Amino acid sequence: TIVEALISALQAKPLAGHTVLMTAGPTYEPIDPVRGITNISSGKMGYALARALALAGAKVQLISGPVALPVPYGVERIDVQTAREMHQAVMQRVGQARIFIGVAAVADFRPLDVAADKIKKTGDGLTLNLTRNPDILAEVASLPAAPFCVGFAAESQNLDTYASGKLQAKRLQLVVGNLVQDGMGGDTNQVVLFDAAGSHPLPRASKTEVATGIVAHLAKMLEV
Amino acid sequence: TIVEALISALQAKPLAGHTVLMTAGPTYEPIDPVRGITNISSGKMGYALARALALAGAKVQLISGPVALPVPYGVERIDVQTAREMHQAVMQRVGQARIFIGVAAVADFRPLDVAADKIKKTGDGLTLNLTRNPDILAEVASLPAAPFCVGFAAESQNLDTYASGKLQAKRLQLVVGNLVQDGMGGDTNQVVLFDAAGSHPLPRASKTEVATGIVAHLAKMLEV
Repeated sequence: TIVEALISALQAKPLAGHTVLMTAGPTYEPIDPVRGITNISSGKMGYALARALALAGAKVQLISGPVALPVPYGVERIDVQTAREMHQAVMQRVGQARIFIGVAAVADFRPLDVAADKIKKTGDGLTLNLTRNPDILAEVASLPAAPFCVGFAAESQNLDTYASGKLQAKRLQLVVGNLVQDGMGGDTNQVVLFDAAGSHPLPRASKTEVATGIVAHLAKMLEV
Repeated sequence: TIVEALISALQAKPLAGHTVLMTAGPTYEPIDPVRGITNISSGKMGYALARALALAGAKVQLISGPVALPVPYGVERIDVQTAREMHQAVMQRVGQARIFIGVAAVADFRPLDVAADKIKKTGDGLTLNLTRNPDILAEVASLPAAPFCVGFAAESQNLDTYASGKLQAKRLQLVVGNLVQDGMGGDTNQVVLFDAAGSHPLPRASKTEVATGIVAHLAKMLEV
């Protein structure tokens, strides 16, 4: 990764001195030792953003659910599996962070009871009772000394309504919205940035370029 | 992959002329456009076995759930997501197969209703009603002209009982059993082979070596 070190050395550092805590990837909520509930998330957008933030000079800690991606150059990764593990890892570190970015597709619900042994199939059906997971982003944003908070909203419809609703309801500074059909799993993405000033669509581009666009917008907001 | 071609050329071909249909990886059963139920399966054991079978001269078709692994040299891969898609892909091809090997961690249950749009979190709980998926291996093994059938049993306890029970209940020729704590996700595995003659433990080894051991046992059984 001499190339990555060179790219980094040649890059402008608008976020130098900033500490960013972020989450990426899916979470995995066990049903039993071999089954679980998960979210579709390749982690690509979050990892591209972690890399772009590090290139822009930020100190980046990435709390990551299970993904098959290498750790970006200059990024510290902490591996977790469940939403509750992610919550704990975030809360331990958020006091030191200037910026918090929740990219992870956190499971909203987990099975109420986790079976210690593999559930054998008997009968034609099965009922799973689920209970709510902590809302990590909302909890971070409502801390007395909350960091600058950025959320992601992946929706299948009504993106503007849901994303600007999320901005207000969770009192975030910025929400990055995308339609799931536009970005999930692929190498390109099309996003719209929502902040107090309104909405700012970015052109469809590679996740690397989209990440650079988000970092540029973020750096401008922090400058003011 | 000149190296892979060379390895292949130098290898003995005990399975030359045999057509193997196999499944590997997890299946993914959507709950809504962003969430689903899955099984823990990296696909590594199945892909290692597909490679070993191809190296031993077999014509290998691999029906694969979502995994982040490259297609082994000489193997034809067919990608699927759900158990029902896997079932259909297997049934279309099984008539041509001399050997069927079910390595995939197929979800036994799927959500009864799949939400067309992302379920919004409201309330503290959620109940998921699940319904049975087809049992691909049992269905293949009970075909009038069934191929030689090999199953995998990943258990968290009572391996001998469950694996030899699976051999008899589904009328398979061979079951490869392992304890989930011994193999899941890692690069090594420890398995026990169960056939009509009894149980045959293989030593803990890399998944590549375990795959070679399984193929050797299989070739010996087919010889008789």
